[in-house]
Formats: sequence, structure tokens, C-alpha cells
Amino acid sequence: MNSFIIQGNFLESETPNKLKISGQSFLPVENGQCRGVFPLIPEQYQGLPVTDFGDRLILPGMTDLHVHAPQFAFRGLGMDMELLDWLNTYAFPEEAKYAELSYAEKAYQGFVNSLLHSTTTRASVFATIHPEASLELMEQLERSGLRTYVGKVNMDRNCPDMLREESAKSALEQTERWIQAAMDRFANTKPILTPRFIPACSDALMSGLKELQRQYELPSQSHLSENYGEINWVRELSPASSCYGDAYDRFGLFGGDHPCIMAHCVHSGDTELDLIHRNGVFIAHSPESNINLASGVAPVTRYLELGLHVGLASDVAGGSNISIMQAMMHAIQASKLRWRLLDENVKQLTLEQAFYLATVGGGAFFGKVGRFANGYEFDAVVMDDSSLFHPQPLELRSRLERMVYLADDRNVFAKYVAGARLF
Amino acid sequence: MNSFIIQGNFLESETPNKLKISGQSFLPVENGQCRGVFPLIPEQYQGLPVTDFGDRLILPGMTDLHVHAPQFAFRGLGMDMELLDWLNTYAFPEEAKYAELSYAEKAYQGFVNSLLHSTTTRASVFATIHPEASLELMEQLERSGLRTYVGKVNMDRNCPDMLREESAKSALEQTERWIQAAMDRFANTKPILTPRFIPACSDALMSGLKELQRQYELPSQSHLSENYGEINWVRELSPASSCYGDAYDRFGLFGGDHPCIMAHCVHSGDTELDLIHRNGVFIAHSPESNINLASGVAPVTRYLELGLHVGLASDVAGGSNISIMQAMMHAIQASKLRWRLLDENVKQLTLEQAFYLATVGGGAFFGKVGRFANGYEFDAVVMDDSSLFHPQPLELRSRLERMVYLADDRNVFAKYVAGARLF
Repeated sequence: MNSFIIQGNFLESETPNKLKISGQSFLPVENGQCRGVFPLIPEQYQGLPVTDFGDRLILPGMTDLHVHAPQFAFRGLGMDMELLDWLNTYAFPEEAKYAELSYAEKAYQGFVNSLLHSTTTRASVFATIHPEASLELMEQLERSGLRTYVGKVNMDRNCPDMLREESAKSALEQTERWIQAAMDRFANTKPILTPRFIPACSDALMSGLKELQRQYELPSQSHLSENYGEINWVRELSPASSCYGDAYDRFGLFGGDHPCIMAHCVHSGDTELDLIHRNGVFIAHSPESNINLASGVAPVTRYLELGLHVGLASDVAGGSNISIMQAMMHAIQASKLRWRLLDENVKQLTLEQAFYLATVGGGAFFGKVGRFANGYEFDAVVMDDSSLFHPQPLELRSRLERMVYLADDRNVFAKYVAGARLF
Repeated sequence: MNSFIIQGNFLESETPNKLKISGQSFLPVENGQCRGVFPLIPEQYQGLPVTDFGDRLILPGMTDLHVHAPQFAFRGLGMDMELLDWLNTYAFPEEAKYAELSYAEKAYQGFVNSLLHSTTTRASVFATIHPEASLELMEQLERSGLRTYVGKVNMDRNCPDMLREESAKSALEQTERWIQAAMDRFANTKPILTPRFIPACSDALMSGLKELQRQYELPSQSHLSENYGEINWVRELSPASSCYGDAYDRFGLFGGDHPCIMAHCVHSGDTELDLIHRNGVFIAHSPESNINLASGVAPVTRYLELGLHVGLASDVAGGSNISIMQAMMHAIQASKLRWRLLDENVKQLTLEQAFYLATVGGGAFFGKVGRFANGYEFDAVVMDDSSLFHPQPLELRSRLERMVYLADDRNVFAKYVAGARLF
């Protein structure tokens, strides 16, 4: 029985604009589920074993809504191009190497190890087109104890030969075999349908993926309105669509009946935002990537005001850093420059909002994840900030803020996912 | 005799747009001075002891042209305001604590230790108005082996009582005593005149500081054109000045006959840039701070094209991170958003340019510093990137680029300043 009590300082989001801070409190966990945070141990939980994390900070585990595992190897490299050139010059040649299983095995170890020691407990991951390498990644993620979705990527047009699936038909057959193998083998790591983006997917491929979605009840993920060149290209390829999002929606791969993540949404117009709202699409806000590839800055505070589902994403390797703490920093910083340089009507992102995106916002894609309230799965990271010197004691909110800017893997002291302690 | 040979992979800036990369080479150092990088040990240096850093990267030491030592304690905190409110709410109350020497002693240890283990070898530092605490900081910096300028801050108007010097006269007397004490006691750490900024300094104070400059032959440092509110305030306070820079120049505290650093220059107009050019003022480009305080982004590639002196600055605690590697990242990222959101006519900053700013650009304030060419002082950081996983070998330029995004103090393996090894 996976039941115990955690003692320490808890910080979580009550709403997008409000932190709930519980200094020196107790969190009973029953069968991996939170029972809420209390100043004293409630009578019915007395007798459960207590783990005391002292003065450290206990935060809900964070969700990375969009990350490319095969690009981890070249994070922080080739940051001198915009999206389409960057894909052709850096991303695609690297991804082609994953045809070789031994390369994938080695490279994915770096990714999984780094993800494990970050503040991330849940992630939705892009692999490559290669079924065997994708299963290898899932195997490694399964062993890590993290809870993840992984997508074998589909792409059958407008991409280099080395990364193009032969035909829609063979792509779909391979994808179905991969789905079946993944559903057989893994409990914590689940398949997610992953058409790369509209320019790289034929109509036949998209229609077939929708069939697979119905048959296997799978969510989907892709890219949306990241870069002007990309958006114009989609407009040419799909002239009948009212917006980029509609080019997915035509095939039923834009939320609605099945959960869906769309990365970026930097330049989404009102039509697209309406569709996102109506279909309950999750936006994976990827601030560092959107800076590095000079895409722009998504108006994320506006998305929160509109009541859209938004979470944070590292988008490695458009983003260099796999840390969602760093993504919080980049999200706040990017919103400030957007406010100063582009549009003072869209507010700057606050610490409270960034923390909400990192925990509740993205966590919601995985169910009741991202809080310590009764009924939520117990995902947590225990942060030790004793290495971050300060001559005087600091309040808990200040310690959280400081870690957004300064924490790295050394500060991640312990991690729980769905009630299981990973380290 | 401080003479030896360093062996390893050397990277340095040949021009703002060109890296000089010397894989597995030799750098003779005589009496702390570089003799250039050679593929083999030149005959006249044979016999000198060789230190082999293997496959690590050897970079010129970096210069932090603008950093507030007393603000180090609250880096990464209070990042929710613009400049003037931020000063009153966070910076000034913290700086007031340095009236107490025991607080200063403890707090400055955190700053000096962190600076020592960063890639910085030279820095120009703001202390507070307190002479004793400023000497304590200088004492600690002297012991560290870093080469620094430190300024006891002057401010006698428009600031809270707790941080206002009583009168221009007493401020100048205290400053002169501090200068004399510092010149007596320290070899590596030198005084620099530091009027905080025009709004906080009376005319009498500024005139007196110019007298001290003439008498003791000291450089000066201050802030310039960081934030719109600040700039408007200066316009009100100094209506006869043609620009903010001219408000310093009226008192002769804007370069020309003595070296001068001005931090920020985010919103400098053509008149001000002409004056900066004519007077040889060094611009301390502080990208992270300018983002965090929502000040904007200085058009730094334009400044390079104009042939201005520009270096990088952490500007802790407007900036959260003391690392000049991270400042390179922020400088590149900020330039991309400026290009995308504000003005496509000002080019994005390249890796080559950012590295130039971090080494040669800021180093020039300290003389022949920032290269390995013959006659330059031997400042170097030896970077070990073996913890940054990659499944295949990378070229040296790629390893440098990756470290800009991902290196931290763990990657700084060894450091030399003016020929002396600090660790």
C-alpha cells in the first residue's frame, strides 16, 4: 500500500493568480493520492509513516507539454536560424540518426537521465519516425518512473528522404504496430499520435491517423502557428482552411473528442483561438524555443484570461534547457519584452501565473495532476535551496521566486510521481 | 617568475565577427603575459613548464562591466517592477543594511565566492555608500585574486534617508578618505568613482567628484538611459542637457579625459551615441537586467557597427545570474526578440559577437585583456564540458555555443588572472 505522510513546506497554485503556501505542514498520501495539506496530521491518518523534508520546499511535479527527445543531443547548438531552415539544417539530420537503434539507445539515455533529475514529473514527448527507436525511448522512460506520452512521429511529405515515411499506407501500418507494441509493454508511458505538422503530413496520412485515434482512443499532439514562414506555407498547402488550426480540425485531429496538445500558438488569430477554446486544445507554451528561433512571444496572459488550457514546454532543442523552472523564467522574461516592445495591452506574466502553468496548467493533460488537493495524484519535487546563499532568512514565496531564476538539477533533492519516490 | 606554457584547445575573438579556434595548441606565458598561440612550442620557450588541459576548452577570462555586489543577496527576487519602483522597494532597503559591517562581511562573502567560481576574471563593481563596507568588499576581492574596480556609491538627493549621504561636502570627504585607504591597501582592486545616477547626485557632489577624479586619476562609472521613467526624470532635473549623457558630461564625468563605464544605454538617441563615441565611453550591456526590469533591449549590434566600446554585464540583481556566459545567452536572445518584435533593421547578435563582448569588449577597459595574442595579460577560464552529454564528438565552436546555453559553475575547471592560477 502506497500510503504515507509528507512533512515540510508546501507551495501550490490555488488559482492562476494565487499561491497556496503551507509552511511546516503535513500531506497525507493514500494509495498515491493526495489528501490535502494540513497544519497537523488529521486523526484518521495518524499511524502512517512520516517523511520529513525539513525546511526544504515541496512543489507539485511539473509538466513538460512538448519536448523532442531526439533533439536533446544538440540542445544549445545551431541557434542561428529560424524554424524551417533550422529543421532542415539541424533537426532533421540529427533525427535521421535514430534509424540506427544503437545510436538511439545511447542518445536517449542522456535525455531520460536529464529529465529524471529535473523538476519534471510528466511529459509529452516527440520521438522520431522510427518505431524501434521510439519503443527504445519508451522502454527507458518506463524504467525511469516518469509518467509520459511518447509519439512516434509521422511525416510523409515535404521533408528530406532520410526522414520521410515511404507512403501514408506504410506509415499508418508501422504506426499501428508501434501502438500495439507500446500498449502491450508499458504502463507509465503511453502512445500519442504525432503528425509532425501540416506541411509534413499528407491528407491520406492525416485521415488514417484519425482512424487510429478512434480505434485505439489516443490523444494527439502537433505544432501550431509558431513561425511566419511556416504559417504562410500552411496557408498555401491548405487554402480551404480558415486558419492553421482548422487544417488539423478538418481531419478531426484538433481536440474535441480526444485530448490534443498544440505547441507554440505564437501567432494564433481569433478564429484559431476560438477553435482552440471550443475543442479544449492544450497550448504548450514554449518561450525559450520561441526566442531562440526568433519566432516571437505567445500572448500567454491573454490565453489565461480567455480560459484556454495552457502549460509550459521546454521544446528542447528549440529550447536549450530541459528545466521547466527555467521555462518559467523564460516565460516571465519573454512576456516582459513582449509588453515593452510590442503590446502594452497584454500583461506581463507573474510568478504566480508561471507557476500555475508549470504545475496545474500542463498537469491537467494528465488528469488530476499538479496540486496537493484531495484526489490529486501525488507528484512532487522536493527542492533544496541551501546552496543559494542568502545572509538572512527568506519567505517561502521568495525562495520559490529565486529558484525560478537560479535552481538547477543540484537543487532537486527528491521526486515523487503518482505516489512513487523516484529518488 | 610567472612563466609557463598552457596546452589545450584555445578559442578567442579575432574580430567581433570572427573566432580564432586553435585546437590542441600551446600558449607560452611570460611574466603573466601571453605570447600568442602556436601549434608547437616555439624554440625560445622550450624548457618552460607545461600545463596540459587535455580536451577542455580554454577561453579568455570574461569581464563583467557592471555588477552591484550588495544586491547579490537578493538576486532572483522581486522581479515584478520597473526600475524606479524596484530601487525603492528592493534595492535601497537591502543596500541600507550594509551600514552594518558584520552584515556586509557575511553578504559579500557570497558575492565574492560566486564571482570567483564564475567565468569572470575582471569586474567593475558597485558597492554602497558605506566606506567601511566598501573597503571590506575590496579586501575580500583583493584576496580572491580577481582584478576589479570597486566604487563606493555616491548619492545625496532623491533617495531614502537611510541611504542618502548627509551633504555633498561630507560625501566627498568620506569618498576621499575611502580612495586613500583603498589605494594604500590594495593592488588588484582599485577604486572607481561611482555617482549612482543623475537623479541621486547634486551638482555640488558631481563637481566635487570631478575634482577627485583629477586629483587621484580615477575612472568613473554610472547608469545611463535604462528606463523611460528614469530618462524623463533626468530631463526634468537637467533641462539644459542635450541628453542624459550630457548631464554627466557637463561635469566631465562622461569619459574623455578619464575612462568611464555607463551601464545599459537601452534608449540612447543619436546625440547621446555621438557623445559616447567621441568620449570613448564603455557601454555595459546588461541584457538580463533590461529584460527583468522590462526596460527594453539595447541595439547592441548597431553599437558594434558604430565602433563603440561595448562589454557585457550581469547587473546583478537587476540580472539574476552572475555568469557572463549566461549574459551572452541573454544578449543573443534579447537581440532576437528585439529584431522580431521591434525593429528588423537592427541585426540579431551572433555567437561570435556575444563572445567578443564578453572577452575583448569588456576586457579593453582593463587594458590588454580578453585575448591570447602577444602582449595580452593571461586571463583564462578552462571549461570542462564533459558533463554535457553528447552521443558524438562535437567541433570546438559547437562546444562553445552549447556552453553559452548550458554551462554553470561546475564547468569552470580552472581560472587564471594576469598569469596567476586562482584554482
